[in-house]
Order: sequence, then structure tokens, then C-alpha cells
Amino acid sequence: MTRERLWLYDTTLRDGQQTQGVQFSLKEKRQIAEMLDGLGLDYVEGGWPGANPTDSAFFDEAPALSHATFAAFGMTKRAGRSAANDDVLAAVLNAGTRAICLVGKTHDFHVTAALGVTLEENRENIRESVRHLVAEGRETLFDAEHFFDGFAANRDYALACLHEAHAAGARWIVLCDTNGGTLPQDIASAVAAVIESGIPGERLGIHTHDDTGMAVAGTLAAVEAGVRQIQGTLNGLGERCGNANLTSLIPTLLLKPSYAERFETGVPPEALPGITRISRKLDDILNRVPAKTAPYVGGSAFAHKAGLHASAILKDPSTYEHVEPELVGNERIVPMSNQAGQSNLRRRLLEAGIEVEKGDPRLAEILDEVKRREDVGYAFDTAQASFELLARRTLGGMPNFFEIERYRVIVERRRGAGGRMECHSEAVVVLSIGGETTLSVSESMGPEGSDQGPVNALSKALAKDLGPYQPLIEDMRLVDFKVRITGGGVEAVTRVIIDSADDQGRRWSTVGVSPNIVDASFEALCDAVRWKLAQEGATTMAGLAAE
Amino acid sequence: MTRERLWLYDTTLRDGQQTQGVQFSLKEKRQIAEMLDGLGLDYVEGGWPGANPTDSAFFDEAPALSHATFAAFGMTKRAGRSAANDDVLAAVLNAGTRAICLVGKTHDFHVTAALGVTLEENRENIRESVRHLVAEGRETLFDAEHFFDGFAANRDYALACLHEAHAAGARWIVLCDTNGGTLPQDIASAVAAVIESGIPGERLGIHTHDDTGMAVAGTLAAVEAGVRQIQGTLNGLGERCGNANLTSLIPTLLLKPSYAERFETGVPPEALPGITRISRKLDDILNRVPAKTAPYVGGSAFAHKAGLHASAILKDPSTYEHVEPELVGNERIVPMSNQAGQSNLRRRLLEAGIEVEKGDPRLAEILDEVKRREDVGYAFDTAQASFELLARRTLGGMPNFFEIERYRVIVERRRGAGGRMECHSEAVVVLSIGGETTLSVSESMGPEGSDQGPVNALSKALAKDLGPYQPLIEDMRLVDFKVRITGGGVEAVTRVIIDSADDQGRRWSTVGVSPNIVDASFEALCDAVRWKLAQEGATTMAGLAAE
Repeated sequence: MTRERLWLYDTTLRDGQQTQGVQFSLKEKRQIAEMLDGLGLDYVEGGWPGANPTDSAFFDEAPALSHATFAAFGMTKRAGRSAANDDVLAAVLNAGTRAICLVGKTHDFHVTAALGVTLEENRENIRESVRHLVAEGRETLFDAEHFFDGFAANRDYALACLHEAHAAGARWIVLCDTNGGTLPQDIASAVAAVIESGIPGERLGIHTHDDTGMAVAGTLAAVEAGVRQIQGTLNGLGERCGNANLTSLIPTLLLKPSYAERFETGVPPEALPGITRISRKLDDILNRVPAKTAPYVGGSAFAHKAGLHASAILKDPSTYEHVEPELVGNERIVPMSNQAGQSNLRRRLLEAGIEVEKGDPRLAEILDEVKRREDVGYAFDTAQASFELLARRTLGGMPNFFEIERYRVIVERRRGAGGRMECHSEAVVVLSIGGETTLSVSESMGPEGSDQGPVNALSKALAKDLGPYQPLIEDMRLVDFKVRITGGGVEAVTRVIIDSADDQGRRWSTVGVSPNIVDASFEALCDAVRWKLAQEGATTMAGLAAE
Repeated sequence: MTRERLWLYDTTLRDGQQTQGVQFSLKEKRQIAEMLDGLGLDYVEGGWPGANPTDSAFFDEAPALSHATFAAFGMTKRAGRSAANDDVLAAVLNAGTRAICLVGKTHDFHVTAALGVTLEENRENIRESVRHLVAEGRETLFDAEHFFDGFAANRDYALACLHEAHAAGARWIVLCDTNGGTLPQDIASAVAAVIESGIPGERLGIHTHDDTGMAVAGTLAAVEAGVRQIQGTLNGLGERCGNANLTSLIPTLLLKPSYAERFETGVPPEALPGITRISRKLDDILNRVPAKTAPYVGGSAFAHKAGLHASAILKDPSTYEHVEPELVGNERIVPMSNQAGQSNLRRRLLEAGIEVEKGDPRLAEILDEVKRREDVGYAFDTAQASFELLARRTLGGMPNFFEIERYRVIVERRRGAGGRMECHSEAVVVLSIGGETTLSVSESMGPEGSDQGPVNALSKALAKDLGPYQPLIEDMRLVDFKVRITGGGVEAVTRVIIDSADDQGRRWSTVGVSPNIVDASFEALCDAVRWKLAQEGATTMAGLAAE
């Protein structure tokens, strides 16, 4: 069976950079371009040469792409000068990319109100700009800005603009829903009208925004109606609510039979499992917390919390999963929660390497303890490591590595040298390890000599002298800290979740609960250390002595 | 023009609670139910009576809803017993709600594989359960679980299940895309087939999940095909990738002419501007950072970053906005320096009773200071009282009531009387008030003699001796405390928001930011006291002496 080719055009580095708070560095642009190329995107748009120093520098030293066509973005020439004499257009040409995408107006209101030129001048700008690029031997794309709004307002003019670009030799005419408000059914009917007007679907692209939460659906509606190029961004980055999310679109195109059977993309099936890693890597670059609920790639995308669902998943994952998580490089999660039953629990234990027979009465004990704790504020679905410790304690065989004798933490703000107010935290932790007492003290100074607070000080003091266990925890560090007040007001209880990591790539979460935020944190810190010791196969002091 | 009625059914408190990490308390359930009722939802589903203690308690003391029908969720009776003898079903009936929604199987594979009963038994379970509820006088909804997958696999059986519920008197047959993988066009054709089979659209509902990023589009495709009830959740909470997002759907239904002209909902247009506040309030309850890119209600939904866009927006906002932000209670965001930013600021100051002339250079100063602080983690949109203090300081005329000389807080855990581990917090605060120094110490003991932590101790010590101001703050109390870590990882900065209240019914929020959580809290506590003093019309010591 022959399938039609669908082309994927990524604009993460250009439109994606319009996201509030996003500004890529040169190095990050290069890194992202290489990821996109590796995934199999057909086009990677690098930015707007001449618009800012980073974009210019990025084109000066273009990334080596093995598969994707590198593209520069710009706008049609301004009125009153020739295409060859437009310096903005010249800067785009000078970037030397194989493809160039030019945005131009197609909505009459924007031509006269925003641009302030005549409708005929605008048509000429489109025609002459495209003709100039084509004459220079470049693959030319025309981004028809506000096309769908223009089509609704002045259909003939909007179509006439498209035909200028088409007749001038543009390889692609990209229909843009710039303001993001067009409904999928209206996108579909406009695309049909464009094709009927004489521009074939294999010359048309679609560019949508998520202002009604339907950027992905609008894109697919355009594909159904005949367009054969998709513009989008990784993780749906982009101005306002973002662009069409390629991280959602690509798995749907490759995994849903009604697309996979009809269309072929440049993304090979074997590259698809890389998409979760790429999505998370982008968030990592942006220092953002990945969206847990993102389709396919989110941390919760295959998380089954409801008790009924979780038990069915154990019988057959297809009962509550529309695709297999492995196909997109993601993982199934059956979290612990008070809604879960024993089968859920057994499965969770198995993932932690703990095998318990069906019907073992200790399963009920563990569930009871989980419920009891969740009632007072613990959250074991996020804190898997604390859950494992709880289970191991109930099952027996959890070594008692150390005991807390006492701790004390002092936070002080006072006038320091030079009369400036300074803050200072100091913690003392006293442990008993196999009968030996260790006393450690730490203060909390960040990289710039600034105080990092009581939890940081406690964490340092706790990890300072664990006696014989010390070598086992040297590579462990605190990577995240989350606080949630439950109950509210005067009855507030604080839940602290601490994420830790080590040099072997492990990352684990522990939980502590107390009305006292410092004490809740300390509990989570201690669990983090205990879990690490258990992973390292540490035995108790008695065990160590016997070895 | 007569419009057809579309019914909105909210399941935030039931399916929304399947979100990873979400567990509503009784008080939170009540608060959310009231918000939904105020917005104009037709149905509010409270949970599953009998499934867990919180849900049961919530139904025992049902919220007073003025508009919405309160609904309980449950499942069809099990095989081998009558509906009247099914204890799970009885618990749902005993909750005494006007409406009951029962989930049941319609996919043959699930009936035999997950449920382990015969296809005929399952049909009987649906028929008898619905018949029983209808006989008891309840408005009955049937959630047809996995309907679309079932329809694809065994069309006749899936339809037969629906007809059992329909013939037995169910008011609504809700078609569920439980696994979230069905494409909008396939939802549309299945809905058409159901209607053709004899169940009219005004008896049909739609329930989608966002596993391909198309829950909203799938819902609207079903409406186009004829269904007249929509199930969804606030902010798209829900299992895995979440449910259809009512916060996106409601504005589209009310603002997009192709829906607004055809359909009427229970949400009055004048309630629509409340939706942004409701969306953020829910995140506040969950202590989540609101999704900036959420359609309509997100903080970035009307943010114009691209230079070309921002300048066009100043000429005419419709150039780059599909709807006006005011219609959904949201705000346009344009670069700080421009005119629009300043007029926003003047309006906000006026709300605080501070009048500043247009063009006053101090407006730019305030904007700069707000921006500088927000860059390091402050959030003045929630902490209005801290914003007012900042503005008053810049404008001059903010009295310097007191200065912090120093503070110290100690948290200690050690073995107490009887060998039990006990926690203890103690705070010392030293203030300078009009040249006089006051030194106060407090410990932190809650109602049951348990330690409440360092923030509580600091709050008590700070409010213990404010010298001549003391009578003015006697009626003030700390009512809520929220902590958010911004930045993440080792560069984490803590933002603390403190809500205070007094006996005159005032409630105000202040913010503090620091890597040290105790210091951030102390800053917010001091702002809370200062704002209260300013409200009480306190002047400085010098002023007091002169009176």
C-alpha cells in the first residue's frame, strides 16, 4: 500500500521562542536543532536572521543537520522598494539556508490597519518577495498570516494573496491561524475552498495556535481536508497558549491507524520512543517542570490511579491504555493511593523488587498503614521511596541503619558587618549508629555566600557523618523540594516532598508530614538517606561487622 | 432565535480527583462545589459515596447548591444479586442526591476480561440498576464506559448496552472515551450511529479524555453530531492526561458565534468573567502553579511578546486576539514599559484607594520595582496587600511603623519526658519602635500541646509587643499559609504567601521571598502587620506622640 507523504516543519526555535519567559541561547538552539534532526523532522526553522544577535549568530554557524532542511524566517519586502533592495529580506537571504519561510499578510484589515499599505501593494510585496527568493534558488515557503480570519472577512482577497505566492513559485503556502481562534471545522472548510480555488493540497501547510485548546485538532482537520505540511513546536511552545504540539501530533500520526495507514512522515517508527526523552530534555534546557498531563510524553500520561482501573491494568494494560507507553518511550505508573486495592499494591511492590504472595495478610497491613498516613496528609503516589520504606518495614527485613537522637536548627537574622541585615541557618544533628553517637553541625551557605535556609542546613548536617555508611551516600544530593499545606488555616499540616538524585542516575522522592515545616522536611530527608542506603545494599552495623 | 439547550456536567470532584497527586479534603470539595454552582454548571458530581471516608462524609453533609443538581457516582450492580441487594449501589442511593450517575461496561472485551461476567449478565446489570434508580425517583445517568472502543470492536453489543439503559429510563446516556484515544472524527461518526439507532441527541452526553490532546475537540465534535450534555472538569483535571477542560469549553461555547448562536447553557454571560478567577482558585486550593498557557484563563493567554504583535495590539487589540480578555476575566499582558502597562497599574492602585495622575513618572518606578521583584519570585497578583505596600513606599507617605532589629528561631527535636521524641519551636523577635527596643519571645504550641513550627512561633513573637500599636493588631490572625518553591533544584527560591484576617472581616495576602523558607515567611508576616496598621490609620510614633 502506498502512503502519501506528510511533511513536518518545526518552528520551536522561532515561534516557540515567543513563549513568555523563553529565550534560547546559541548553544541551546544548536542542541534543540540536533534533537529535531535526530527525531526526523523535515524542516527545522532556526529563527529570524537579523532580528536579534542570537538568531544572527546561530545562522552564522549553522548546525550540521543530517536529515532536516534548515530554514530561516523573515517577512515579505516592505512597500516602496524592490525585493532586492529590502535590507530585512537581504539579511534573511544572507543566512544562506536551503529554505526560507516568509510571513505576509492575507487579511485585508491587517494590510490597511496594521501595515498601512494598499491591498494591491501587499499583493505585490508577496509576489515580488517570493519571486526573488525563488530566483535565488531557495525553497520558498509563504506563511499566510491571519489567513483564516482573512478568509472569513474577505475571502477573495485572502485567496488572491495565496495565489500570488503560488504563482510566484512558492513550494509551500502555509495557512496560519495566527490568533488561534478558528474552530477545526472552519479550518477544514477554508482548506477545502483553497484547494478548490486551484492550489493543490501537496503545496499547502497548516500552522495553528492553541487559544481554544484545539491546535492539534485544527491541524489534523486541515490534514483531513488535504494539506500536506504541518508546522508545530516541541511541547507546544509558542506565543500566548502556544503552537500546535508536535510532541502530541507525531505519536498520533505514527500510532493511530487512520493516519499511519494513509500517511508517511520523515520520522521513522524506531525514532518514536525517543520523543519522551526529547520532550523532557527541552524542559530541562528551559529549566521548567515537565507538564505531567502532556499527551503521550507526560509523567502522568500512563498513570492509573483509580482502583478499578489499576486492577484491570494488571490483567491487561490495553484495558485502560490507548497505546503502549513503550512506543513513545514513556512508562506505566500504578501509583499508591488510598483508592487502590491489593492487586495495585502487589504490582507496585513488584516494581520495587519486593515479591509478596497474593492473599498475604501483610498486604492488608501495608494498605491500612498507607491509608492511615494518607488521612493525616502523606502522599505516597508521589513519594514512591517513602512507600517502599513503609512496605519494607511492615514486611520485616528493613535494616535500622541509624536512629535520630536529636536535632536542632537555628535561623537568625541580624545586623552583620557593615550594618547590613544578614540571615544565617545552623543545624546540629545527633545520630546513633550501631550504638555509636555521631554529632554533626552544618551551616547553610549557597554558592554566593547567601543563606539557603534550615532545610539545607539540616540536609548537610545529616549527611555529614553517617559513620560506616558515609561512602554510600557521598554521591547523593537534594534536587527538589516541594511544600504543600493541607487542611489550611490553624489546623494546617505541612507535607514536604523531597526529590533526591545520585551519580548513578537514580532519582527518588520521599515525604514527611508535620505541623512544623522543618520537622516534616527532616522526616523526608531521613527517608531519602534510608532509601539510598537500602538501594546500595547496606546492612545494619551488626551486618557490616559480620562481613 | 430559539437556541437549543446544552447541559454541563462537572466531574472535577470525582474524575478530577483521579489526577496524580490530587486528593481533595472535605472543606475543599465543598468550596469547589460552591464555585461550580456559582458559575452555572447544571450538574456537580460530588464523588462516589462509600468509596472512601472523605467522599462519604461529603455526601453526609451535602453542599447547598442554588442552581446545580448534585450528583453521586457509582457503578452498575454486580452480577448474581438484585439491584436492591447490592450494597455498593445501596451506598450510592443512600447519599440521597437528586441525580445518580452509574458507570457500566459497553465494550464486550471488558465485560468478559475485566469484569468476568457474561455479555447477557452485563446487560441485565445495566437494565436492573437503571430501573432500580428510576423507580426510586432519581434522575439517572448511565456512563457508558469505553463506549467508543466497544463500538469499534462490537458495534451491536455496545449499542445494545446503551439501549438497555435508555429503555430502563435513564435520563442521560453518556458516551465515554475512557482511554482517551478516539479521534474526533470517529467520535462524530459513532455518535451519529447511536442517534440513528434510536436514542435521540437530547438524551446523550459525551465524556472525553485528553490522551491525544483532543479532549475539547472530541467533545465539540460530539456536540456537532448531536449530543446535548458535556462532561468535563475544571482545568482539565482527571486521570492520566486529564478530562475535557470545562475552562476551555465554556468560553468557546459562549463566545464563538457558531456555538453561541445555536446553543444556550446554564452559564449566564455575566458569570463568564469569573472563570479565570475560578480556574486560579482551584490551582490555589491544590497549591499548583496555574498553567500559563491554558486557553482563555492562562496567565500567558493574552500575552503578546513578539515585537510586531505588541505594537499592533496597541493600535487595535483585535489584531492579535481572538476574543477580548475581559470577557473571561483575564488580562492582556504587553511589555511593561508601554502605555497599556501603566493604565493597568493605575486601575489597580485605584482599587486600593490610591489615585495617581496619568503620566506620573512614579508609575514607571512602581512598574520597574514590581517587575524586578517578580523576576526573583514575588507574585503580586495574589499578594495584593504587599503590592499596596510597595506602591505606597514608592509614592511616599508610607509610615515606617517599626524596624526589625533581629530575630532568631530555634526548632529542636529531642527525647522528652518518658523517652518520647518531642518537637519544639521558639522564636525571639527584637523590634525598634520609635527609638524604643522591644524584645519578645514565643514558643509554638497548638491546641493539643503539639508544636506548630517556626512560622507560628515567629508570628506570635512578632505580634506580642508592638508597643503603642499593640491594640491595633489584637484582632488580627494568621488564616492561611502557602509555600511555593520557584526555580526548582539547587537554585530554588521559596515564595511564601500568608493570608491574614481580622474581626472586621478583612482578609489580606502578603508575600515573602527568600531561599530560606523561614526568612521568606517572616517577610510576609511583617508585611501583614504593616498593612493592618496602615488600614487602621496608624501613623508613626512621631505622629502618635503629636496627637
